Amino acid sequence: MPAPMLSPKIPHVVILGGGFGGLAAARALGKRSTRGRVRVTLIDRQNHHLFQPLLYQVATAALSAPDIASPIRKLLRKNANTTVLMADVTRIDPKARVVVLRGEEEKEQELAFDHLIVATGMQNAYFGNDAWEANAPGLKTLDEALEIRSRILRAFEGAERTRDDAERDKLLTFVVVGGGATGVELAGALAEIAGKTLARDFRNFDPKESRVVLLEGGPRLLPAFDPKLSEKALLSLRGLGVDVRLNTRVTNVDANGVQIGDEFIPARTTLWAAGLKASGLTAQLGAPLDRAGRVKVNADLTLPDNDRISVLGDLIALEQDGKPLPGVAQTAIQSGELAAANIVASIDGKPRKNFHYSDRGSMATIGRASAIAEVKGLRISGFIAWMMWLFIHVLFLVDFRNRLAVLFEWAWAYLTWQRSSRVILALNENRKS
Amino acid sequence: MPAPMLSPKIPHVVILGGGFGGLAAARALGKRSTRGRVRVTLIDRQNHHLFQPLLYQVATAALSAPDIASPIRKLLRKNANTTVLMADVTRIDPKARVVVLRGEEEKEQELAFDHLIVATGMQNAYFGNDAWEANAPGLKTLDEALEIRSRILRAFEGAERTRDDAERDKLLTFVVVGGGATGVELAGALAEIAGKTLARDFRNFDPKESRVVLLEGGPRLLPAFDPKLSEKALLSLRGLGVDVRLNTRVTNVDANGVQIGDEFIPARTTLWAAGLKASGLTAQLGAPLDRAGRVKVNADLTLPDNDRISVLGDLIALEQDGKPLPGVAQTAIQSGELAAANIVASIDGKPRKNFHYSDRGSMATIGRASAIAEVKGLRISGFIAWMMWLFIHVLFLVDFRNRLAVLFEWAWAYLTWQRSSRVILALNENRKS
Repeated sequence: MPAPMLSPKIPHVVILGGGFGGLAAARALGKRSTRGRVRVTLIDRQNHHLFQPLLYQVATAALSAPDIASPIRKLLRKNANTTVLMADVTRIDPKARVVVLRGEEEKEQELAFDHLIVATGMQNAYFGNDAWEANAPGLKTLDEALEIRSRILRAFEGAERTRDDAERDKLLTFVVVGGGATGVELAGALAEIAGKTLARDFRNFDPKESRVVLLEGGPRLLPAFDPKLSEKALLSLRGLGVDVRLNTRVTNVDANGVQIGDEFIPARTTLWAAGLKASGLTAQLGAPLDRAGRVKVNADLTLPDNDRISVLGDLIALEQDGKPLPGVAQTAIQSGELAAANIVASIDGKPRKNFHYSDRGSMATIGRASAIAEVKGLRISGFIAWMMWLFIHVLFLVDFRNRLAVLFEWAWAYLTWQRSSRVILALNENRKS
Repeated sequence: MPAPMLSPKIPHVVILGGGFGGLAAARALGKRSTRGRVRVTLIDRQNHHLFQPLLYQVATAALSAPDIASPIRKLLRKNANTTVLMADVTRIDPKARVVVLRGEEEKEQELAFDHLIVATGMQNAYFGNDAWEANAPGLKTLDEALEIRSRILRAFEGAERTRDDAERDKLLTFVVVGGGATGVELAGALAEIAGKTLARDFRNFDPKESRVVLLEGGPRLLPAFDPKLSEKALLSLRGLGVDVRLNTRVTNVDANGVQIGDEFIPARTTLWAAGLKASGLTAQLGAPLDRAGRVKVNADLTLPDNDRISVLGDLIALEQDGKPLPGVAQTAIQSGELAAANIVASIDGKPRKNFHYSDRGSMATIGRASAIAEVKGLRISGFIAWMMWLFIHVLFLVDFRNRLAVLFEWAWAYLTWQRSSRVILALNENRKS
């Protein structure tokens, strides 16, 4: 049975985006104590909340797509005051307090709000080189992860098929651009696939001949971490056979490889983990933005000239202790909870609170049984950091069923060196309509 | 390390297709006793062997794609005499004993064979109405299953979004065309999704309002089974709320619904389970075909005028005891094993054996905890048949890891009524290249 519709007189909060931030805000507004006092509509382009920290594992065939994705409406099914809509938001009118949305093949719909929470996150940025995108996909959505998985597996298939040695070398070269957490994790997983997972599966070449190149523009990997951990990560990756190049800027990417200054690296597969920009919707808020499109909000996360609109997570351009906020799940979750509390405070005529990010630590994995972590000034690396990483990620997987499924996949992978999702999907190619 | 290349003087067997038939043939030819005496190349368009009997569970969001798919080269990794290639076969020259294949973006390659096994299976057939395909996808590949899953989930999303009652009714009507095993299983799963899985997830409608219509052209469901079991299936489906119409022929399908004679059923989602035809390659064999494109082979499965080419599984046009062979996994497996043995016999100058299909029984599920089965003249239905179905399907899942994963998903689904793979994937739409 549908929930009884709440009276239209109750303030309507519209949340754009069902990531960590939007979901945290919706959960806070759906609590028993506030449930009867606000109506909530959450809008997302996808039907699922995505556990982004494990997205690289879908891209590298360790997990299946449903392992890290749960339907948003299932996660919020108990919130009787909340409606979930899968739709594109095409326009925001901050003054008129209206968002315009469109589903597939449908007319546009207007939706009026009393309060708006913008939590649409980041997308891949190519810094003026959008033509590179076709040959160097990034990793922000499940569809991109499946596209990357397909490219990696197809490259090995092509290497088995070809009778041309130069072509085989090109197919067996994987370039990852960007030495942040995503780039490090992708490079580590690729080295493991080539060295172990596929070791006995081919007849015309040895997968160990394949080459993983990680390119970082700055002087060290994982610049958000302590330099000593950057050094550990560098040594771990080199130990896995990854060709890591620091202070290296890409000057061109095409279907045949990557140009870095005078050197050309022939490669069929290039993956992009070098930059992000804010989702395009921020430009419609009428607020000042930084270079990456993030919104320069007040300390309480509302817009400078419009306290009915709040911005969450990666989209916040705020500094704390002289540093920008880290683009991690905790920033999104904590800002989502604060924005929700502030909206309730506004409705009650009480003062809003300012955002203060509480650092719970950060971590990254480097291949099998190896990770780095930084928690409250403590630096941890190796197997213990990897166990921590494992524990925390399973714990935070939002959906109970997914926790068990992922644990099962990981235990299996650890025991067998296998990856269970080596399936090439190609909806786009076989589609007739 | 790649396996040592076998001498090119050793007879080369090329197998087209890595389904049940092709895989059984490859396994037989890779046995210790024959391994050193033949070289084998197996070619498939996909990188994975697909456990087709469970494909409808991927389409209805109960299983994820990797649960029922294993990389063919992983399944055959221990067969040192076997090379697996992912490629399209564009041409067969039966006289010159050459197949022509093409990978992506590559030139065509010729591959000479001494013996050829054609095991490329069936594809959806629309009987002269190919325009229907865009609005009524069939269920033969993993990509098609994900496309169907996406359409089903998008229809419910659209129903939550729309403000138009007629449009909502259209979105909540699911028409399945064809009352064979696939149609019955799809209709049963759809009824369960609407009645239970999604029961509390929407605010603007009750999923129980949705309507599942199953159209069958003949006088009964599951015509391959005993009439008493057809009757049981009919009662079970009607008990689940499915609107089953027998003796009903579709006269048109478009994006708005299905025409059956004078009646039009408005529906956004139509699924096609009404017919199959042989893969197009059979036309190149120079052998007589039946109406569905199956090959009229000799009793030993070779072509009438070419004993170097054998045909397997669904592609065989042979009668046994006055009935056509059933299009099930057992037909494919048994014919694959026989074709492999006959090739070894030919090489040894021994006589080939004729194919005799040994019926191991057949079964179909009808929603939760209900199935029908027919084994050696015994007819079973209800919960016991469902337990048998469960046991046999898990047992036959080719890959050990997948067995555990599927058991886990099923146990979870049985306890919670949930479906773990409610994820809309849309590679084609987000793809930039």
